[in-house]
Amino acid sequence: MIYQRVALIGLGLIASSMAHAIRRGGLAGEIIGTARSSETREIAREINLCDRITETATEAVQGADLVVLCVPVGAMGAVAQEIAPHLSEGCTVTDVGSVKKAVIEAVAPHLPEKVHFIPGHPLAGTEHSGPRSGFAELFDNRWNILVPTVGTPPEATDRLRKLWEGMGANVDQMDAEHHDLVLAVTSHCPHLIAYTMVGVADDLRRVTDSEVIKYSAAGFRDFTRIAASDPTMWRDVFLNNKEATLEILGRFTEELFALQRAIRTGDGQQLFDYFTHTRAIRRGIIEAGQDTAAPDFGRGPKR
Amino acid sequence: MIYQRVALIGLGLIASSMAHAIRRGGLAGEIIGTARSSETREIAREINLCDRITETATEAVQGADLVVLCVPVGAMGAVAQEIAPHLSEGCTVTDVGSVKKAVIEAVAPHLPEKVHFIPGHPLAGTEHSGPRSGFAELFDNRWNILVPTVGTPPEATDRLRKLWEGMGANVDQMDAEHHDLVLAVTSHCPHLIAYTMVGVADDLRRVTDSEVIKYSAAGFRDFTRIAASDPTMWRDVFLNNKEATLEILGRFTEELFALQRAIRTGDGQQLFDYFTHTRAIRRGIIEAGQDTAAPDFGRGPKR
Ligand SMILES: NC(=O)c1ccc[n+]([C@@H]2O[C@H](COP(=O)([O-])OP(=O)(O)OC[C@H]3O[C@@H](n4cnc5c(N)ncnc54)[C@H](OP(=O)(O)O)[C@@H]3O)[C@@H](O)[C@H]2O)c1
Ligand SMILES: NC(=O)c1ccc[n+]([C@@H]2O[C@H](COP(=O)([O-])OP(=O)(O)OC[C@H]3O[C@@H](n4cnc5c(N)ncnc54)[C@H](OP(=O)(O)O)[C@@H]3O)[C@@H](O)[C@H]2O)c1
Repeated sequence: MIYQRVALIGLGLIASSMAHAIRRGGLAGEIIGTARSSETREIAREINLCDRITETATEAVQGADLVVLCVPVGAMGAVAQEIAPHLSEGCTVTDVGSVKKAVIEAVAPHLPEKVHFIPGHPLAGTEHSGPRSGFAELFDNRWNILVPTVGTPPEATDRLRKLWEGMGANVDQMDAEHHDLVLAVTSHCPHLIAYTMVGVADDLRRVTDSEVIKYSAAGFRDFTRIAASDPTMWRDVFLNNKEATLEILGRFTEELFALQRAIRTGDGQQLFDYFTHTRAIRRGIIEAGQDTAAPDFGRGPKR
Repeated sequence: MIYQRVALIGLGLIASSMAHAIRRGGLAGEIIGTARSSETREIAREINLCDRITETATEAVQGADLVVLCVPVGAMGAVAQEIAPHLSEGCTVTDVGSVKKAVIEAVAPHLPEKVHFIPGHPLAGTEHSGPRSGFAELFDNRWNILVPTVGTPPEATDRLRKLWEGMGANVDQMDAEHHDLVLAVTSHCPHLIAYTMVGVADDLRRVTDSEVIKYSAAGFRDFTRIAASDPTMWRDVFLNNKEATLEILGRFTEELFALQRAIRTGDGQQLFDYFTHTRAIRRGIIEAGQDTAAPDFGRGPKR
C-alpha cells in the first residue's frame, strides 16, 4: 500500500483507469471519487468504481494523502481553488493534464504551503471518455511524466513515482516547458492535423460522407480514431499549449508546402528520399517497445 | 475454381496476400508468380508462395486466364508492354494499383483487343512489403474497387468479382476519376500528412529523436505507422494522382490555417465545434464495420 486514501477528482477515462489499476496493484487503502455531474457519480456507484463516491470535491479530499486532479486542463484552476482549504497537512496533489505549464500556473497559486504539488501526465489514452471507459491496463508499459515543482521533497516525488510504477507505468521527469514542446510534437499537433483532415473529408461535396466512411480502410481510419477524442479535452489542450503548438504547426505547414511543390513539379526523388527517411523513425518506435510490427489485427473489422 | 491459371506479376504484400487468399478459397487451378529480382523469386520459392515461379513476366502469363499486375503504379506501363504479345485470347488482365486513371492511361494502349482489361484496387494494406509480408486475411471484409473499361463483357467483370469475393472482399464499381478523388481523401493525403508530421518531428533539434520515439504513445504512433509504408509505392501514387491530391491538400491547408487562427485568438468555441463535428464521422466508420470501438489492444507494446 503506497497511500492511505486517494481522492480522484473527475471520473473520466484517466481517473477510472487509475481506480482499476490502483485496485489491481493494491496500492491504496481507500479510493474516494467524485465528479461534477450526478450522472457520472451515479454510474461510478453502479459499477463500483471506487470505495466511496462523494457529492463534492471538498468532501472527497478530506483526509486524503493523495489528491489527483483528473478534469480537463481548463478546469484545473477552479477545482484547485475549491479544494484548497480542505486539503490535509502533508498531502500530495497531482494532476494528469495533457499540458503542464498552464496547469501549474492555474493550480499552484491556490495551494497551501503544507501540501506538495507534483504535476504529472500519463502518456496513455484512448479516444473514449467517461467513467465506463477505464481499464486497469491503460498505463502498462506507458510513460508517466512528472514535473515536480521547486521545493518538493524528494520523498514525496518518490512515493508518487512508486504509485505510477505500481500501476504499470514507467516514470520520467522533465521541466514543464520541455514537456509542452515534446507533447506538441508527439500528440497535440498530430491530433489537430487528424481533426483537420477528417473535417476536410466531410466538407468535400463531390465525395459523399458514406463513401469516405466506406472506403476508409488504411490511413484515414487511423485519423478518424485520433479525431474522435473528447472535444472539451482537446479544446483545452490547444488553448493552453498555444505557443508550442503554433510553432510546430508552422514548421509542419512549411514542410508540407515543400512536398506539395515536389508533387506539382514531379520531383520523384525528393518524395522518395523524404519517405525513406521517415521509415527509420518508425523502426525506432518499434525498437523502443512503444508499438509492435505486427499487422493491425487486434482492431480488425467486426464480422 | 474461378480461374484455371492466375499469373501474379510482382510478389510483394498484395500479390503474396492474393496467393494465400486464392489458396485458402481454392479459387484457382494454378498460381504462377514472378518478380523483378531474383532475390524475391528465391524467397517466393522458399516459402512455397505459388505453384510455380518463373524468371520472367513473359513466361508467367503464358496460358493464364487471369493476369494480375502487382507492381508499383509507375511500373505498370512497362510491365504491360512486356507481357502484351504473350497474353492468351480472352484472358483478363487486372491490376491492384492505388491510382486508377494514370494506370489505365499507361496500360490500356499496350493491350491487344483479344484480352479484357479490368483495372482494380483492393483497399487493404499494411505498412509492410515484400513476399513474406502477405497473409490470407488481408482482404477479408475490405473493399475492392473495380473500374471496368468501356466494352468489357459483363461476364468477365462478374468472374473477377467472384474471385475477389472468394478472397473475402466486398466489391464495388466506380469510374477512374472518382476513384482517384475518393482515394486522395481517404488514403493518399492522410499518408502525405503523416509523412510530413513525422519529418517535422525529426527536424526539430530541441526535441531529440529518442524523446519523440519514447513518448509517441497516442497520436504520433499512428502517424509513424502510416509513414512507414513503402517509399517507392507512395512516390508513384503522388506522381500519378497529382491533381486530386493537390486539390485536397489545398483545402486541408485552408482549414488548418483557420484552426491555427482559432488557437492564436483563443476561440475555444470554434475548436470545440470543429472537434465535435469530426466525432460523428468516426461513429459512422464504426457503424460501417470498417473498425471497432475497442481500445487499441491488438497492437499493445511488447513486454
Ligand atoms: N483521454 C486521454 O487520452 C488523456 C491522456 C492523458 C491525459 N489526459 C488528461 O486527463 C484529464 C482527464 O481526461 P479524461 O480523458 O479522463 O476525460 P473525460 O473522460 O472526458 O473525463 C473528464 C472528467 O472531468 C470532469 N469535468 C469536465 N469538465 C469539468 C469542469 N469544468 N469542472 C469539473 N469537472 C469537470 C467530468 O465530469 P462529468 O463526467 O461529470 O462531466 C469527467 O468526470 C484531462 O486533463 C486530459 O488532458 C487525457
Ligand atoms: N501496400 C499497400 O498498402 C497497397 C494497398 C493497395 C494497393 N497497393 C498497390 O499494390 C501494388 C503493389 O504494392 P505492394 O504493397 O504489394 O508492393 P511491394 O510489397 O513493395 O512489392 C512490389 C513488387 O513489385 C515489384 N517491382 C517494383 N518495382 C518494379 C519495377 N520497376 N518493375 C517491375 N517490378 C517491380 C517488386 O519486385 P522486387 O521484389 O523484385 O523488387 C515487388 O515484387 C502497388 O501498385 C500499390 O499501389 C498497395
